[in-house]
Amino acid sequence: MPYFDAASSAPLHPIARQALLASLDEGWADPARLYREGRRARMLLDAAREAAAEAVGCRPDELVFTSSGTRAVHSAMAGALSGRRRVGRHLVVSAVEHSSVLHSAAAHEAAGGSCTEVAVSRSGAVRPEAFADALREDTALACLQSANHEVGTEQPVAEVAGICGSAGVPLMVDAAQSLAWGRVPDGWSLLAASAHKWGGPAGVGLLAVRKGVRFAPQGPADERESGRAAGFENLPAIVAAAASLRAVRAESAAEAVRLRALVDRIRTRVPQLVADVEVVGDPVRRLPHLVTFSCLYVDGETVLQELDRTGFSVSSGSSCTSSTLVPSHVLRAMGVLSEGNVRVSLPLGTTEADVDRFLDVLPGVVSGVRERLGAPASAATPSLSFSPSPAATETLVVDALGRRCPVPVIELAKVIGDVPVGGTVTVLADDEAARLDIPAWCEMRGQEYAGEEPADRGSAYLVRRLH
Amino acid sequence: MPYFDAASSAPLHPIARQALLASLDEGWADPARLYREGRRARMLLDAAREAAAEAVGCRPDELVFTSSGTRAVHSAMAGALSGRRRVGRHLVVSAVEHSSVLHSAAAHEAAGGSCTEVAVSRSGAVRPEAFADALREDTALACLQSANHEVGTEQPVAEVAGICGSAGVPLMVDAAQSLAWGRVPDGWSLLAASAHKWGGPAGVGLLAVRKGVRFAPQGPADERESGRAAGFENLPAIVAAAASLRAVRAESAAEAVRLRALVDRIRTRVPQLVADVEVVGDPVRRLPHLVTFSCLYVDGETVLQELDRTGFSVSSGSSCTSSTLVPSHVLRAMGVLSEGNVRVSLPLGTTEADVDRFLDVLPGVVSGVRERLGAPASAATPSLSFSPSPAATETLVVDALGRRCPVPVIELAKVIGDVPVGGTVTVLADDEAARLDIPAWCEMRGQEYAGEEPADRGSAYLVRRLH
Repeated sequence: MPYFDAASSAPLHPIARQALLASLDEGWADPARLYREGRRARMLLDAAREAAAEAVGCRPDELVFTSSGTRAVHSAMAGALSGRRRVGRHLVVSAVEHSSVLHSAAAHEAAGGSCTEVAVSRSGAVRPEAFADALREDTALACLQSANHEVGTEQPVAEVAGICGSAGVPLMVDAAQSLAWGRVPDGWSLLAASAHKWGGPAGVGLLAVRKGVRFAPQGPADERESGRAAGFENLPAIVAAAASLRAVRAESAAEAVRLRALVDRIRTRVPQLVADVEVVGDPVRRLPHLVTFSCLYVDGETVLQELDRTGFSVSSGSSCTSSTLVPSHVLRAMGVLSEGNVRVSLPLGTTEADVDRFLDVLPGVVSGVRERLGAPASAATPSLSFSPSPAATETLVVDALGRRCPVPVIELAKVIGDVPVGGTVTVLADDEAARLDIPAWCEMRGQEYAGEEPADRGSAYLVRRLH
Repeated sequence: MPYFDAASSAPLHPIARQALLASLDEGWADPARLYREGRRARMLLDAAREAAAEAVGCRPDELVFTSSGTRAVHSAMAGALSGRRRVGRHLVVSAVEHSSVLHSAAAHEAAGGSCTEVAVSRSGAVRPEAFADALREDTALACLQSANHEVGTEQPVAEVAGICGSAGVPLMVDAAQSLAWGRVPDGWSLLAASAHKWGGPAGVGLLAVRKGVRFAPQGPADERESGRAAGFENLPAIVAAAASLRAVRAESAAEAVRLRALVDRIRTRVPQLVADVEVVGDPVRRLPHLVTFSCLYVDGETVLQELDRTGFSVSSGSSCTSSTLVPSHVLRAMGVLSEGNVRVSLPLGTTEADVDRFLDVLPGVVSGVRERLGAPASAATPSLSFSPSPAATETLVVDALGRRCPVPVIELAKVIGDVPVGGTVTVLADDEAARLDIPAWCEMRGQEYAGEEPADRGSAYLVRRLH
C-alpha cells in the first residue's frame, strides 16, 4: 500500500524507532537535574544536539530543539523580529512560504508591523532581484524556504542569502522540506526544520540561530533550551530525531538519484497518459522526491478518494480539499491550475513498481471522475468540433454560480466551441478557485483570458476564443 | 537504585511504553489528511482525547493536547487573559505557583497588565478569604495550582473555585502534580497538566478550557488542536499519555494509601533521626507521595550529591542547587528554612525497603556534611554550653559576607552562646538565602529574630538571644 505523501509526514525511520526505544528507558528524567538519571538524560540531549548541529551545519550552542517545525518557525520569526525591533518592523517573505511563516507574518502585521510578500514565477521560485527589491532600510527580517512544500521547487537560497547579507538583514530559512537531502547553503541567520519530515518522530523541531544574530525570545521566560523553547525537553523523541537525520543523510545521495529518476518518470508519463494535465513546479531545480500536477475537469477531493481506494495516499492543493474551500496559496501565487491537483511525494525506499502501479491506476481514476462530471472529451479541441453557422452567437454567458470547482471550468470548456473564433464566453462564478483556474485553463488551451469583472454575485470571467 | 524525584519527572509507565510502541506504526501520519494513514491517525487522536477528557472530567471538545505542561499553562493564561481583556487586565495567582504560571504573570505585567500574588501560610496553602480579597472588578483571570510541586500541600481549589465562580472570574488550575491522583474538584474554568508527571512520555501537555469561557488563542494562527496548540500533533506520545493516565488512575487509590503511609514514615522518622530538621508542607492536606524537609547547617547541593552517591535521586529548593543562587520561591513564600532542603517524591511502586534504606542513609549523609562544614553540635543548645562571664559581650558581629548558605547560619549558631541572654548577634551576609534562613533558624531554635538592616555590603540580620 504505497504512501506517497512524505512531504506531509514521513513514516518513522527504522533508526528513529530504534533510537526512540533505546532512549525511553534512559531519557525520561529531567536533564537539568544533577543526579544519575538527570545526568544520563543530559548526555543524551547533548549528543543529540551535536548530531543535529553537525547535520544542519552550525555549532551545537546555536541549535535548540522545539516541539515542532511550526513552533521553530514561530519562535524564529518572533525572536528575530523583536531582536531587531530598533532597526524597524518590516518583514519580507516569499509568497509561497509554509503557512507557519505566513501566519507569523500576519500576526506581525496585526501587531503593527509591515510585511512585503515577494512574488514567484510560474515555476514557484522567487527571483533574487525581486527579493532584493523588497528589502528596505527598516527590514528586520527576511524569510525564504529552502524548497517549496507543495511543488518541490528549490529557492535560490544562496543568492538571496548573499543579498540579505550585503543588506545586513538576517535571513530565516524554513528548511523543513529539504534538510533530509542536505545542508542549506551558507549565509542563513536562522533556520527551522521539522523531524517528522525526515522520518523522525513527531514532537521535535529544530531552531538554529547563528551567533551574532540579535534574538529576543518572546513569550513567558523559561530556562529550557537556552530560553528559546519552553517546556520539558521531549528527550527520547529528540534522540530519535537526531539519529534519523543522520541516517537519512547517509542514504540521501543515493536515494536522491533514485527518487529523482522516479519523479522524472511521473513528470514525463502523466501528461502522456492523462490528457489536459499541467505538471507544475521547476522540472530541474526541485526536491528529488516530489512532483505536483493538476488535471483539468476533475475535483481533487474525488481524485484523492479514488486514489486512496486503490491504495495510494497523496495530497492536494485543490480548493475542495481544504477546509477553507480556497486553493492553496502556493498554486495561487504561481498562477497555475489548481483543480484536480495532486501532490506525490515519495518516501525513502519507494520502489519503481510502486510508481508504475500509480501510473497504471491514475488514468482510469481521472477519466472516471471526468465522466461522472460530464467533462468535455479531452481529445476534441473546440476548433475541430465547431462548424461556424450564421446562428452562432458572438458571445455566451455561462452561469456557474453556486457551483464548485471544477464545474465552472467544465462549463466553459463545453461552450467555447459554440462561439466563433473571436467571440467571447463570460463565466459567472462565485467559487474562489475559478479566479485561478479559468485563466489557467486559457493558458493551457491557448485561449485568451480577457479579465475579471465584479458581478451581482461572484465574478464574471471573460474568455475570448482564439482558435 | 531508588529514584525519589517523581515530581520532576516520573519514569515511563509500562502501559505508556506499550501504547507508544503500538502507535509508532499507526500514528505517524497527519491526522488532518483523509487517506487511510491519516484516518488511522485521526482515530487514535480522537480516542486519546476521549480517554484524557474522561480522566480530566471534561468534554473531549474542551480538551487539546499541547507540547508540554508549560505550554499548556502559557497558552491557558495568554488565551484567557486576552479573551477577557475587555473586563480588565488584572491577574491573581498564588505566590507558590509553578514557574510557568509566575513567568506568564511576569510577561503579562511586562505587557502592561497587573498581577496580585496571594500569600500562603507557613504550610504552603492559600486562605480562600485571602484569595477572595485579591479579586477585583477588573480581574480577568485567577490561577491556583491543585497541589504544590515542592512541598505537596493541597490548595483549597473547591472553595476558591466557588469564590471565583461567584465573582464571575475564570479560574485556571495547574493540575500538573495532582492529576495522576484524581480529578480536580469541579468549578475550574481552565486546567493544565503534563503527561511526564504521571508516567506518560515527554512532549505532551493537556489544556482544557470549559465551554463558555472566553478564550482567544495568542500567537500565529494554526489550525491544529482547535487553534489552541500550534504544530503537528505528537501523536504516538499523545496516545501513550492518555493510556498511562488511565492506567495510573486505576492504581491511584491503592497506591495513594500505600505511599501516604511511606511518606508519613519519612515525616515522622526524619526529625527523630536527624537533629535540627524542619519538615515543611501540610502534614494532612497533601499529595500522597511527596515530602519535603530542610536540615540546618548543611548545603543542599552536597546533600544531593551524597544521596546520589548512595543511589538516591532527590531534588532540592536550596539556593545552592538553583542556577540563580536564590532559594525556591515556594520556600520563601512559606517563610520556612531553605538550607539543606530535600524533596522526596516517590514514584508508583516505591517499596517500603527503599524508604527504609533512605532513612538508614540520610542521618550519616547529613552529619557528614555538617562535620565538614564545622557546624555546631546539634544536641548542644547554647544555653547549656554558655557559662556567662564578665567578659561576655552584649553584642557580637559575625561577618559572613561572601559566604554562601549554610555558612551564615552556622556562624550564627556558633556564637549565639557567646552573648548573654538578651544580648544580640548581628550577622552580615550577602547570600540571598540568609534572608530566609536566619529568621527560620530563630523560629526553630526559639531565639528572637529582630529584623534586617541594609549594610555597606549585603544586609545586617539582627538576632536576640532568648535562652
